[in-house]
Amino acid sequence: MMKRCTTEVRNDQNLLEWLRETGYFLPSPCGGKGVCGKCRIRIIEGERVLSMPYPGLRNITLDEWKAGWRLACKTMMNEPLTIDIPDLWNEDANIMTDGYCKVDLNPCVRKIYLDLPKPSTEDQISDFDRLRRVLGNVDVIDLNLMQLIPSILKKNEYKVTVVLHNETIIAVEDGDTTGSMYGVSVDIGTTTIAGTLIDLNNGDEVGIYTCLNPQRIHGDDVISRITYTIEKKDGLLQLQKALLEQLNRMIAFFESKYGVSANNIYTISVVGNTVMIHLFAGMPVASIACAPFNPVTTRLPSIRAMELGLKIHPNAAITSLPMIAGYIGADTVACILATNMLEDTGYSLLIDIGTNGEIVLGNKNGLISCAAAAGPALEGAHIQCGIGGISGAINRIEINCNGLSYTTIGNKPAIGICGSGMIDVIAQMLDFGIIDSFGRLLTYEEAQNVLPSALALRLKEYNGAPSFIIVKEQEGAVKDIFITQRDIREIQLAKAAIAAGIQILMKEINIDYDDIDKVYLAGGFGNYINQDHAMEIGLLPAECKGKVISVGNAALTGAKIVTKSAGYVETAEKIQQITRYIELSNRLDFQDIFVDNMEFK
Amino acid sequence: MMKRCTTEVRNDQNLLEWLRETGYFLPSPCGGKGVCGKCRIRIIEGERVLSMPYPGLRNITLDEWKAGWRLACKTMMNEPLTIDIPDLWNEDANIMTDGYCKVDLNPCVRKIYLDLPKPSTEDQISDFDRLRRVLGNVDVIDLNLMQLIPSILKKNEYKVTVVLHNETIIAVEDGDTTGSMYGVSVDIGTTTIAGTLIDLNNGDEVGIYTCLNPQRIHGDDVISRITYTIEKKDGLLQLQKALLEQLNRMIAFFESKYGVSANNIYTISVVGNTVMIHLFAGMPVASIACAPFNPVTTRLPSIRAMELGLKIHPNAAITSLPMIAGYIGADTVACILATNMLEDTGYSLLIDIGTNGEIVLGNKNGLISCAAAAGPALEGAHIQCGIGGISGAINRIEINCNGLSYTTIGNKPAIGICGSGMIDVIAQMLDFGIIDSFGRLLTYEEAQNVLPSALALRLKEYNGAPSFIIVKEQEGAVKDIFITQRDIREIQLAKAAIAAGIQILMKEINIDYDDIDKVYLAGGFGNYINQDHAMEIGLLPAECKGKVISVGNAALTGAKIVTKSAGYVETAEKIQQITRYIELSNRLDFQDIFVDNMEFK
Repeated sequence: MMKRCTTEVRNDQNLLEWLRETGYFLPSPCGGKGVCGKCRIRIIEGERVLSMPYPGLRNITLDEWKAGWRLACKTMMNEPLTIDIPDLWNEDANIMTDGYCKVDLNPCVRKIYLDLPKPSTEDQISDFDRLRRVLGNVDVIDLNLMQLIPSILKKNEYKVTVVLHNETIIAVEDGDTTGSMYGVSVDIGTTTIAGTLIDLNNGDEVGIYTCLNPQRIHGDDVISRITYTIEKKDGLLQLQKALLEQLNRMIAFFESKYGVSANNIYTISVVGNTVMIHLFAGMPVASIACAPFNPVTTRLPSIRAMELGLKIHPNAAITSLPMIAGYIGADTVACILATNMLEDTGYSLLIDIGTNGEIVLGNKNGLISCAAAAGPALEGAHIQCGIGGISGAINRIEINCNGLSYTTIGNKPAIGICGSGMIDVIAQMLDFGIIDSFGRLLTYEEAQNVLPSALALRLKEYNGAPSFIIVKEQEGAVKDIFITQRDIREIQLAKAAIAAGIQILMKEINIDYDDIDKVYLAGGFGNYINQDHAMEIGLLPAECKGKVISVGNAALTGAKIVTKSAGYVETAEKIQQITRYIELSNRLDFQDIFVDNMEFK
Repeated sequence: MMKRCTTEVRNDQNLLEWLRETGYFLPSPCGGKGVCGKCRIRIIEGERVLSMPYPGLRNITLDEWKAGWRLACKTMMNEPLTIDIPDLWNEDANIMTDGYCKVDLNPCVRKIYLDLPKPSTEDQISDFDRLRRVLGNVDVIDLNLMQLIPSILKKNEYKVTVVLHNETIIAVEDGDTTGSMYGVSVDIGTTTIAGTLIDLNNGDEVGIYTCLNPQRIHGDDVISRITYTIEKKDGLLQLQKALLEQLNRMIAFFESKYGVSANNIYTISVVGNTVMIHLFAGMPVASIACAPFNPVTTRLPSIRAMELGLKIHPNAAITSLPMIAGYIGADTVACILATNMLEDTGYSLLIDIGTNGEIVLGNKNGLISCAAAAGPALEGAHIQCGIGGISGAINRIEINCNGLSYTTIGNKPAIGICGSGMIDVIAQMLDFGIIDSFGRLLTYEEAQNVLPSALALRLKEYNGAPSFIIVKEQEGAVKDIFITQRDIREIQLAKAAIAAGIQILMKEINIDYDDIDKVYLAGGFGNYINQDHAMEIGLLPAECKGKVISVGNAALTGAKIVTKSAGYVETAEKIQQITRYIELSNRLDFQDIFVDNMEFK
């Protein structure tokens, strides 16, 4: 559960920053301001720091302080430290990567082995024309490759493998290398990153890699990332670099685990929300933060791996699916592609709950979309004891008269509560009357006469705030885990935003819940929640019971579809063109509908 | 006539190299081997070098040696030197730049001024989509420009000028810059370079620049340049660099002389023989030197100015016309384009005499071409007193019974004899019987009884070789100028090669001289020669008298055509496809026909 490491002496460098540079990505939803209390580490050696007086830090008790617990973001390094880092941020995070993806294999990259006749006085054509005679009207990607072609041909006695991206030669390789041709599909989430290595010779998904987005150190949600790029001079570059370094770690993982040479990876298809795609490509995001929220572009220019420093084949084609608006990104287009909802005559509703909530409604005649500012509460952020869907996260909770039982991911000692746990507990707190329909938590005094004492006794105050205890440290958890009044408000805001979004879209095209045939629930989240509980709290429309289909990480599925079959890029562009974006903040009726949905019905 | 300069102390550096680095391009046909004697300079100060014993150098007499004359290629610098450099290599060389070029203006580059509505909540589309809404389906050239678009738009309140290369945005400029848009057309000859600055707003040819190809220091002809790339490790890079630096000097000249900003030059169209285009693009040329003479490519990939370090707009499009074979290059395609010979039903013959001789024959149904290894003799190289068509070159000669009269370019004291002068003198030496039909020069003894004494007295020996004096130093020339037996042989070889090439092409398509309607004579050379004399010596077919049209630098004209009107690129590609190349060295009949043509008939 802990990783131990010894730091270098870097006078007055912030420990959190040092850890990040070294490859340890601690959560830091508050962006290093010392208020979220999530970057806890324990100092094992490093006396001078330990001897400081206890400053009364959030999430660290006096006893913990004495035992060496600190917030990394508030620790300055004045001597080498040996520290223990809670192993929350490993790569076995419970990130959905599935989704359905059955397409004909026809990638944008092809390999062709050529055994060419050598030049002779009867056959004097140029080296490049010699290739074109077999390959047809192809181009060469750049002068650099053109300069190398003669020596490659000569060295290999005109037996070479040509790598084509569409109709452009991006590489000429020694001998027959047709057996090794890979592509990678990546979903860059605000919180998590998931990538799939695909064998482009047979479409096999060779391996999967998931990790947390290292940009999290600069804030949990897209707004704090954007703010970072505005406030810090090289912030944009830093965020891009952190992301690209993480993708290079992914490539290195694929290399070592699956014995694939990175040089044989010739394409990466990325999806992600508009801010993530912009940060990936180093494009300014400032304008997305405030009205009118316009991004730089909704389609990337053609990019080669070398331009971004991605350590795959330098001429590999880096593509993103198109985006729709500042808050409806390539991930949503990918979800639409993966669910095939544009082919149906009946209406489908797509809800992608990630760090933001994107909602799409429509049928083959057209789609409308909106972004619900649900915030990252459902992923555990802004929740006192919240945590992502990682090992030790409480993911299921059952309340009964005798108390409460729960499960954790990986059956590890509980370290916090993730989104599906939150939905479970709030839905049942409602059932039992622990919270009222306005979301107010009963005090112990109010509860002691109406609730079973096993439940009433769980109503306590933490730091003066009303709370409901899930599990205490002495019961085997890593620390006390509880729900606060403020946590409930966060969830109410999130579910109201999503519900209001759905209702605005229905209103816009004048349909009712009954008209909706299918509700696609995308995002890792969707696969783990108890749908009934989600409907009880109003996160999903109860009217659509029985119509909900969890499609997992449909964004990644969409990325895989275009990696496997280049023709779907055109479909994605059609989706981009046909999907209208509704700006909720422009709607005079939004506030009313939003507030209406705050209540638990 | 002389330029004076003082060198730096660079122990043991070769003076010729130092001069080249400093921007003085002395001729060096032998490639610095000390045998051609063309890199003469005079040391004014620098005693230690002067006190060396006279080594008996070619082209430098003992008296000259004492006066400080040296070969730069054989002079090592051991102290600072003040030297005089004969001002032969200035930029007023008599290089043809004309040709006929009347096309509709439709360049590959366009500028469009946009006054765009600013983003608003009613109009949230991305910055790039805002451009596309007006411009249609355009792309952005790269991520780098995409990253900059938002700040450029904002800074200029959405009033910007977009520069398009075909359908790709290559620049977004502040405010309205539509008034400034230029292109450059360049003919890179083995010996000379000519460039034209074109105002792409009206097609005006703003200015012209001509200079000698700085690669000449590494040899006069393409073979010696190729050899240099093979023998010297970074030879290819050096040759490319020398050329690109010269082109940058051309740009700087255009900037200073015509007040044009280099950043407003958005395209350069180059033509040149296949070796020159390869060297320009840094592509290996070794394979062109020996059978089967195949080049790397006959078409360049798309190149941006920044890739080559050309100091114009970094995203400017650098294009070359296509090439046909190792010895039929983009210059020949450009000549075919300029003469429009592909449109005629009647047969046309194109002869482009430069450092090599390219010959094309055909009509609208197809063209065939060959390269005659004429060598650079007709440009004055490999001729004892030969010199290019520069100031002071003897360009016209008239022999009569009383002696000989001549003119020089620019009416300057004679410094040597150029191609047109050589043709004049040899044709008239034939007339007067000074040489016989086999090209043998009479001795004085043979001549004294059959020739007027004014002519017989001109038959002397120089360094033991039979020669015919044109003008002596004491008659006002810079030095004694004469024709040697070997010079006559060089011209015989050149004219025989060209004549044989023409005859092989006619034989190939089974036509006779009578079937040829027009003979296009291209190359600067063509405009200056006396056509009758050229026919007399057999350089041009006498059978085509009255059909010869001098088209000047038709290669540059072709380059200007595509700069002005992008549609002609397609015509050029059609020319490339329709033009068959005949390898003379493959023909069993070539040697016979070649030897047949050695004689003067």
